[in-house]
Amino acid sequence: MSARLTIALDAMGGDHAPEVVVAGADMARLRCPEIDYLFFGDEQRIRPLLANLPDLERISTIHHTPDAVSNDAKPAVALRAGRNSSMRLAIDAVAQGKAACVVSAGNTGALMAMAKFVLKTLPGIDRPAIASFFPTLRGESVMLDLGANIECDSRNLVEFAVMGSVFARTVLGLMEPTVGLLNIGAEEVKGHESIKAAAAQLRVTPLPGKFHGFIEGNDIPSGTVDVVVTDGFTGNVALKTAEGTAKLYSELLRRTFESSIVARLGYLLARNAFTKLKKRMDPRRYNGAMFLGLQGVCVKSHGGTDPTGFANAICVGVDLVTRGFNETIKTEMARIGDLTAAAGPDGTPQNPTVPNSSLPDSKAAAI
Amino acid sequence: MSARLTIALDAMGGDHAPEVVVAGADMARLRCPEIDYLFFGDEQRIRPLLANLPDLERISTIHHTPDAVSNDAKPAVALRAGRNSSMRLAIDAVAQGKAACVVSAGNTGALMAMAKFVLKTLPGIDRPAIASFFPTLRGESVMLDLGANIECDSRNLVEFAVMGSVFARTVLGLMEPTVGLLNIGAEEVKGHESIKAAAAQLRVTPLPGKFHGFIEGNDIPSGTVDVVVTDGFTGNVALKTAEGTAKLYSELLRRTFESSIVARLGYLLARNAFTKLKKRMDPRRYNGAMFLGLQGVCVKSHGGTDPTGFANAICVGVDLVTRGFNETIKTEMARIGDLTAAAGPDGTPQNPTVPNSSLPDSKAAAI
Repeated sequence: MSARLTIALDAMGGDHAPEVVVAGADMARLRCPEIDYLFFGDEQRIRPLLANLPDLERISTIHHTPDAVSNDAKPAVALRAGRNSSMRLAIDAVAQGKAACVVSAGNTGALMAMAKFVLKTLPGIDRPAIASFFPTLRGESVMLDLGANIECDSRNLVEFAVMGSVFARTVLGLMEPTVGLLNIGAEEVKGHESIKAAAAQLRVTPLPGKFHGFIEGNDIPSGTVDVVVTDGFTGNVALKTAEGTAKLYSELLRRTFESSIVARLGYLLARNAFTKLKKRMDPRRYNGAMFLGLQGVCVKSHGGTDPTGFANAICVGVDLVTRGFNETIKTEMARIGDLTAAAGPDGTPQNPTVPNSSLPDSKAAAI
Repeated sequence: MSARLTIALDAMGGDHAPEVVVAGADMARLRCPEIDYLFFGDEQRIRPLLANLPDLERISTIHHTPDAVSNDAKPAVALRAGRNSSMRLAIDAVAQGKAACVVSAGNTGALMAMAKFVLKTLPGIDRPAIASFFPTLRGESVMLDLGANIECDSRNLVEFAVMGSVFARTVLGLMEPTVGLLNIGAEEVKGHESIKAAAAQLRVTPLPGKFHGFIEGNDIPSGTVDVVVTDGFTGNVALKTAEGTAKLYSELLRRTFESSIVARLGYLLARNAFTKLKKRMDPRRYNGAMFLGLQGVCVKSHGGTDPTGFANAICVGVDLVTRGFNETIKTEMARIGDLTAAAGPDGTPQNPTVPNSSLPDSKAAAI
């Protein structure tokens, strides 16, 4: 039996807090039975909710605080004035070793600022990134950064590539994930200087995966690579454009089926198959954006999600902890750091084909 | 009756040239009956195709040239070495007043470089942009830039906003189009400095439309605004991500209907409705990226399109010409330029009349 994990929850974060947080925690409890919860927030509002869920109440502790970070608070203000907020105390619990990870559906900017300040970045990582997985034609891929860093230099992008491939390996279970740099053409001549420099660096970096080269926007949903690396501005726009397009398509599809009685009958016949499709594309399934690169696991749930989505975010956090994501990042960064250092002073060219001894040469496992 | 328009066609551009170009021209002839064609390319290959289409042959002239720009040619090389190419001669025809517009399915970067060099930008426009319209929940919107300018300053973005709203007015027929700046949050604090500065400028610029403010990726397909303004890198990624997501959805839908006999029967019943949906989302319908901001109309067709798509690109060019798009841009830029100057503290003319030559070209994209 593995040891029980404690999860710190920002009970006041999100559009429907604390109700959705408590109900989500109850659902996640059934999927990950070895967990305990620390709820941070308004005890008077959390206590009655737990009272209705005795199995959840048994594994939960409430840390009362009246303060909460508002959705429109600027990160710097939240950092300064929110020292006693539910969000901050939940992060503190991770820093103090009282919890294995923190999950919040609150203000993203404030959460990132606080998590960075309290937890600090992992050795060798300059900037943490926001990552999320999403459905593709081949299964699931992971993309980062999704908004933590609006402008990125080549070093940031290379670090994202390392963190993304470690994620694909440890959490998605891919032996040799492929990594693509998002650009506007496959040719070397195109793109920002930072992207070109990152590509040059990635070609000689012994990633825990395989560098595929440049990819374009359409390669994201087609699943050309397992890990999509980009700056936070482009990643945020791409992810939201994909979400919006999926919604557009669903809506047009709904109208199609409602356009005639015969079409409605067609829908009724295909309904079971549609339920499967809906399940596969369900945004709640992909809820839980991970803050990678911090000395502690922090997961951001969508603010408007429901209990199913929030439960998923908790399970993402549990996955990162139990699969030793941060330990692997540290090992990989140390390994890559050493190799880079060895290539430096004496001018010996670094061997671009240095094998990753722990990896088989096989292609990435099919999802 | 309006005067006949002459269209210059790069007969050798695209994956299936000259066949698709000729067949597309024949289809467009039926939709826009008052047009004549100048085909530039290999006469030995074009002549037999026209011979099979006597109605097209009657309105067509072939300008033979053995040279063509290859798909992988770098823009600078094409510009230097392609002076006698079918693409260049077709653009020259517009500059010389022999044709009202040019349509090519060839190398985008080369086409933009040549068009910029030969046609020059419109007065007041620093950088031309690539624009395209796309389906949304509300109908159709236009987005620019889609790849001509990888890095944009606030002035470029403001110019794109003006050109985009003139396009929405003259071509889409919207009286007061709404214009949104693509960002990663609606708040003022987020985004690149250039975007924030552009927003500040747009709030005081009397656009031929209404400045909505910032929009996010999901607002593109939902049709929150009629005109989406962004830099060429982000626009290119967003458009291709949307296209890829639509493809992903179609493919999953196809699999859904094939998953059981009952589901297949459901498809058969809803087939008519589906045909309508497919038609609405048909990428050929949105084929024809417009190069806006040049002293001449230039339309880029997708390289892999079929005759229907190429015919659409021709009709887009005809639309821009007949609706006086460039004349309206000139009027609007002059009006906004005057207003800006009048608004200045000492009456000194402000940015709109800065000549191109004073600006560094290093940031301009090589697509």
